[in-house]
Amino acid sequence: MSDHEEEKIFNLNSLRISPVTSEVEKTFNFDDYVAEKVNHVNEALDDAVPVKYPPTIHEAMRYSLLAGGKRIRPMLCIAACEAVGGHHSAAMPAACAVEMIHTMSLIHDDLPCMDNDDLRRGKPTNHKVFGQGVAVLAGGALFVLAIEHIATATTGVAPNKVLAAVRELAKAGGAEGLVAGQAVDLSCTGNNQNVELETLEYIHLRKTAALFEASVVLGAIFGGGSHEQVEKLRIFARKIGLLFQVVDDILDVTRSSEELGKTAGKDLAADKTTYPKLLGLEKAMEFAEKLNGEATEQLADFDREKAAPLVALADYIARRQN
Amino acid sequence: MSDHEEEKIFNLNSLRISPVTSEVEKTFNFDDYVAEKVNHVNEALDDAVPVKYPPTIHEAMRYSLLAGGKRIRPMLCIAACEAVGGHHSAAMPAACAVEMIHTMSLIHDDLPCMDNDDLRRGKPTNHKVFGQGVAVLAGGALFVLAIEHIATATTGVAPNKVLAAVRELAKAGGAEGLVAGQAVDLSCTGNNQNVELETLEYIHLRKTAALFEASVVLGAIFGGGSHEQVEKLRIFARKIGLLFQVVDDILDVTRSSEELGKTAGKDLAADKTTYPKLLGLEKAMEFAEKLNGEATEQLADFDREKAAPLVALADYIARRQN
Repeated sequence: MSDHEEEKIFNLNSLRISPVTSEVEKTFNFDDYVAEKVNHVNEALDDAVPVKYPPTIHEAMRYSLLAGGKRIRPMLCIAACEAVGGHHSAAMPAACAVEMIHTMSLIHDDLPCMDNDDLRRGKPTNHKVFGQGVAVLAGGALFVLAIEHIATATTGVAPNKVLAAVRELAKAGGAEGLVAGQAVDLSCTGNNQNVELETLEYIHLRKTAALFEASVVLGAIFGGGSHEQVEKLRIFARKIGLLFQVVDDILDVTRSSEELGKTAGKDLAADKTTYPKLLGLEKAMEFAEKLNGEATEQLADFDREKAAPLVALADYIARRQN
Repeated sequence: MSDHEEEKIFNLNSLRISPVTSEVEKTFNFDDYVAEKVNHVNEALDDAVPVKYPPTIHEAMRYSLLAGGKRIRPMLCIAACEAVGGHHSAAMPAACAVEMIHTMSLIHDDLPCMDNDDLRRGKPTNHKVFGQGVAVLAGGALFVLAIEHIATATTGVAPNKVLAAVRELAKAGGAEGLVAGQAVDLSCTGNNQNVELETLEYIHLRKTAALFEASVVLGAIFGGGSHEQVEKLRIFARKIGLLFQVVDDILDVTRSSEELGKTAGKDLAADKTTYPKLLGLEKAMEFAEKLNGEATEQLADFDREKAAPLVALADYIARRQN
């Protein structure tokens, strides 16, 4: 399926509310699951970036990486690993790597020459604390560390699997992934009269969905998933990635900075095109429901119990309040 | 050998002029060699970064990558591949990757929040043309592309070799390589009363020698070199990397901007610590000769004809005028 065809999946011609997944949820305690796994991830991240010489750069990396984010990408990675029958420990290097890349993109996005943001995860942004030069370097170093971590912390795994993971990460982080999304986003800011739904989706599929995709695909690869499973999870992740961004746009107009832990109303202030702006709040919320339903449909052939964490994560992303 | 022991190699207790290598040079036309190989590299780099959507980011990547640098790292990579008996084509993906990483470091180093340079390779710097936001993104994207290129353009090569190459690149580009060098350099600028020779070497071993090392090691790996050959070439590259920087410092005080294709006298203007400043010009030049001699000694057990390009490159780096 070409990029173009895949993107058409998200067209808005047939908005409808998808069936919710409460039946599966009943047998699975999401809060306990997340609490346990986030703990594991935070410990692994702490171990992965020791304080070394030169201290400033390592402190800057740790400052943003260990700032207590929601760890949604590591969760998706681990849940995908489990959905194909793997043990969560097999996904841990990949879970750390995707969070490092995510943190890199946050540090760079917040720079004055990008989105110019002072607040992130309830704390001053990296460049506010360490200066712009160190922030640029720390962001870059986190991407490099992600690659290094995946290539070194996966001993015992077949090299061709590790290489496949490296390729996925590079695709997600590069000029056709994260960077493409950020570049188009940057070029649209302050020039919004021409931003259409197609462009908005282009941005979000790259800025958000690409790394969701890598997270889930890496989890499935290291969990021993089949090619068919990996490709179904890839589509699941793209839809969930777009869903995440639609919800983010909705929260920006409906919540306060205090509730979000970052500057609220920023999209409106910057006259940024968002789903609520293009579709109206109600239709944007309907679109979110639709994406959630379509994503979980991809999991129909998976073991229901093993896939429960992924289903619950999709629901969490759809219904989160910050 | 630990990092500490390796660094002691470069102590200045026994400055002496090393034997020159003119005997080997006589049988080898360096200019023809470089002209032919640089052509191959430039074509491969052009192919590796096509103009795609979004255009700005790809144009920014191409602007700096195809700006006609000396291609010393790709040359070292190819020459190392040939020194162990490989064909230059086996080193081409690695040669492109190391030049991409080098270009990333130049784009980021030139940013206003780093060295704040307006001129590079005789042209306005990346951020002067495309803006700081795009320059940060283009630099990052070049690193990602380097990894992706090495992981995808090496079909037919054993995956464990490719993974070893990925690890080397990540080590060279990350928080203990390039980024460490730039971070310490940044922290020293404007605070030079305390910069000693040890710190200066720390910076250059990471800012310059680490990527020289990766270039040569990757060339040797893809050329089919033995472990012993790879490790000898690793030491060769570290010494040549430091040599390159000593010569760079010397040229900064002895040449004009026009001759260099970049701003001259910049180190002096910024009150930056350099080898000429710490050692005096003559001792700095002697140190350069010494490093050149020690580097080429590492090649004693290599086939003389096959290693001739490496020897000539070391001499070129020692004697270059820009």
